[in-house]
Amino acid sequence: MKEGRRSEVSAATRIKILKSASTAFRKLGYHGATVEQIAAALQMNKGNLYYYFKSKEEILFACHEYSHDRLQELLDNTCRGTAPAEAKLRRLIHAAVHVILDELHGTALLVDLEALTPAHRRAVIQRRDKFDHGMRMIIEEGIATGTFRAGDPKLVGFAMLGAINWIAKWFNPNGPSTSDEIANRFADYLIAGLRPI
Amino acid sequence: MKEGRRSEVSAATRIKILKSASTAFRKLGYHGATVEQIAAALQMNKGNLYYYFKSKEEILFACHEYSHDRLQELLDNTCRGTAPAEAKLRRLIHAAVHVILDELHGTALLVDLEALTPAHRRAVIQRRDKFDHGMRMIIEEGIATGTFRAGDPKLVGFAMLGAINWIAKWFNPNGPSTSDEIANRFADYLIAGLRPI
Repeated sequence: MKEGRRSEVSAATRIKILKSASTAFRKLGYHGATVEQIAAALQMNKGNLYYYFKSKEEILFACHEYSHDRLQELLDNTCRGTAPAEAKLRRLIHAAVHVILDELHGTALLVDLEALTPAHRRAVIQRRDKFDHGMRMIIEEGIATGTFRAGDPKLVGFAMLGAINWIAKWFNPNGPSTSDEIANRFADYLIAGLRPI
Repeated sequence: MKEGRRSEVSAATRIKILKSASTAFRKLGYHGATVEQIAAALQMNKGNLYYYFKSKEEILFACHEYSHDRLQELLDNTCRGTAPAEAKLRRLIHAAVHVILDELHGTALLVDLEALTPAHRRAVIQRRDKFDHGMRMIIEEGIATGTFRAGDPKLVGFAMLGAINWIAKWFNPNGPSTSDEIANRFADYLIAGLRPI
């Protein structure tokens, strides 16, 4: 196998492992799920999985990294555009709901950070802060242009992120709402709260 | 000591233990905190603490029960009144933020439920559902009377609860905002999203 092709296969396997781990964390909790179960769901043996990740903690950290890569990517794309603040914010909420629900079920983002090593924890907090800050900038932009009413962009940003992150706690993949419907309704509600009275 | 007085002292000690446990869970995580640390912070020995609670899991469950007792109490008080839906909802958000921030720092409500025994987990989910349902009823009442715009009260309720529960993740007791300011701003923002356009 050529080097490039091999690293593609390796990256795909890593993502498969993260998805399997997310499902296991969702069902059994981070502390309840075992590396054996994560591997078994992929018809992989534990030894093979350890070739990709040295420990469950490393898998959890990779889940965080993966989710934050997606979030950062969409934040960068959204901020680069010249769309008005409301359209940017709608796109960001929409995409964040998709990351939470469709990528890794957002489970990793909800696991207590204490499960991570201090260095990994710091790295995750830094990325979370960066995303929070990006969302806040869009809210501030909307306030500055008068699209949104004056307020505390930091608190509003936290309220939005809380509402979005919490979805992983109640979402039922077999329930009546698709992730798209949830994304639309959340965007409607969360943006409506910003409109000038 | 008379029986009544003794049980009062005992109840007060139990609450002290819950508050100490919440602080420890907040700082070290549920899995990271030990019963020794919870006891030591109260200048109590571990054996004495075991007189009140048999295990860390029992303390966590009691934290949930305590928080849900407060939440249910305020829901009952709020729903009994004849105030319009908006005033009821404002009161409920306000009080929920106080339970989260001032009672037990809401930490217990955020710990993964997997840490609980199955029976305790079911009991907590049942109480959480009951509170979610009560909040939804107020939103529905507001939609019915035209105070709030039509929408999906279930999704909106989840968004509100997510925003509120998430506060425990970012709140800094030494930060610039008091719990009262946060409660007011959250109520403003979360209710504004429901107003007819």
